[in-house]
Amino acid sequence: MPCLRMKKMTVEERIQQYSAVFEQALADFWSQLPVIEPLKDAMAYSLFSGGKRIRPVLTLAVADMLQKDLSEVMPLAIAVELIHTYSLIHDDLPCMDNDDYRRGRLTSHKVYGEAMAVLAGDALLNLAHTVLLQYADSASRQRAAVYLSECAGALGMVGGQVADIREVGDADAEQIDYIHLHKTAKLFMGAGVSPAISLGIKEEEISLIEGFCKHLGLAFQITDDMLDCGNAAKQADKTTYLSVMSIEAVASLAKEYSVRAYDSLCALPYDTSFFKELLLYLLQRKK
Amino acid sequence: MPCLRMKKMTVEERIQQYSAVFEQALADFWSQLPVIEPLKDAMAYSLFSGGKRIRPVLTLAVADMLQKDLSEVMPLAIAVELIHTYSLIHDDLPCMDNDDYRRGRLTSHKVYGEAMAVLAGDALLNLAHTVLLQYADSASRQRAAVYLSECAGALGMVGGQVADIREVGDADAEQIDYIHLHKTAKLFMGAGVSPAISLGIKEEEISLIEGFCKHLGLAFQITDDMLDCGNAAKQADKTTYLSVMSIEAVASLAKEYSVRAYDSLCALPYDTSFFKELLLYLLQRKK
Repeated sequence: MPCLRMKKMTVEERIQQYSAVFEQALADFWSQLPVIEPLKDAMAYSLFSGGKRIRPVLTLAVADMLQKDLSEVMPLAIAVELIHTYSLIHDDLPCMDNDDYRRGRLTSHKVYGEAMAVLAGDALLNLAHTVLLQYADSASRQRAAVYLSECAGALGMVGGQVADIREVGDADAEQIDYIHLHKTAKLFMGAGVSPAISLGIKEEEISLIEGFCKHLGLAFQITDDMLDCGNAAKQADKTTYLSVMSIEAVASLAKEYSVRAYDSLCALPYDTSFFKELLLYLLQRKK
Repeated sequence: MPCLRMKKMTVEERIQQYSAVFEQALADFWSQLPVIEPLKDAMAYSLFSGGKRIRPVLTLAVADMLQKDLSEVMPLAIAVELIHTYSLIHDDLPCMDNDDYRRGRLTSHKVYGEAMAVLAGDALLNLAHTVLLQYADSASRQRAAVYLSECAGALGMVGGQVADIREVGDADAEQIDYIHLHKTAKLFMGAGVSPAISLGIKEEEISLIEGFCKHLGLAFQITDDMLDCGNAAKQADKTTYLSVMSIEAVASLAKEYSVRAYDSLCALPYDTSFFKELLLYLLQRKK
């Protein structure tokens, strides 16, 4: 994959492009949403907090790869970012990770209080699904929305969060696999596979995109853990591979997942160059 | 309405009938749900905790009034009870109402810890929507599911909960109206109106059922407040009409809402006798 590095500016520009299209659509959606204050303000505080928008970028880029209009999958992109945002608000609560800051700003419960943070999260999760229900006006859109919903729930992200809060300190590599797959990779799968389902491509191509998203998500989470490695406070409370194996072994695992993600892309009959670059970009990031 | 009282045994028997059909369907649904422990156990603890199942009874009874098979609306009934259950778990949290007991049993966070209670609630809300998405395979079912989802979210129940946590102590009657309509009546509307939309009846009939459910929900909440009136601990923290008007004025308001609910029923071209009895039954309950 080393030649991909030469295109680094290009991948950043394309991420920026997708991300700008998404921000505009999200802002339009938000400005028309009739929610009373102060709830809307609390929801917006976390939704517009400088997130990287990696998941909606993935959704839009899949539609682009399939040469479809990005607007055809925009509700999926919005839903996945609403779900990601709610999960961060609830994750930061004192009874969960107890984080006072996220992305350099006070967390929701530090600004609005715990009760409002719980409810703002609930409202975002509910809203994501209202968006998905409004989107589900054909069999393929319905199936796409169900897929994304399952990736977010007890069989997906929430299941991973439960495993995560239970495994502090005594997890083995298999349990960490389970946590990473469910807590992180499932929402990447929801983001990247739901547009593929919705746009009606072949089942074997959907499976390849699923394989790519899964391994991208796993590699992304490991990279996150390695970036947090220098932060003792963050590391102490987390269940990561770094608790059970050397940093060299962890880096090698990240590489293995990347290769698997890359192989899935190579088997797809589309121009997957952006995803190949994205893979390298996310793994080489410094924050 | 005094003659309705003579049929009191009958309404209880019919509630029991609908409720038994619902319990069986919920148990079947639950037994086939592939969720890992201990999350499934935490979700089940609250879902099967002796609730009255008033909302799903309302859903099934509307289908029955329209002479349709109850199974046609069962996913709506299941979704509404999953949503009601999640809202109770989050409502009981220390940062919300801080209740140790509900229905004579320890609350979710007292048994499983706060983090698990937050996640069990999230999982139930997500699951309710996965069920709704799977149900939404026709235009009328989709519209019904969107309606129910909106009743649960920021425009409905969650909006009411936010108003509720903010108004302790200094609310006026108008603010209490807003809280009751959103926190309680909206989910009654979701329960009773979504089957009517799904089963494709006329718009003016849907509006009448909406009027009935709205006023039933408002009267139900006032009755709850009056039942809690003897419980000083519960009353102190709550924003109710009893904080701003006499108990006689509150009882008269409950009667006014009941009359409005009754009038909506009388305008419907169906046998609404069960709902007329249900109205009286819920208002005369002692717990």
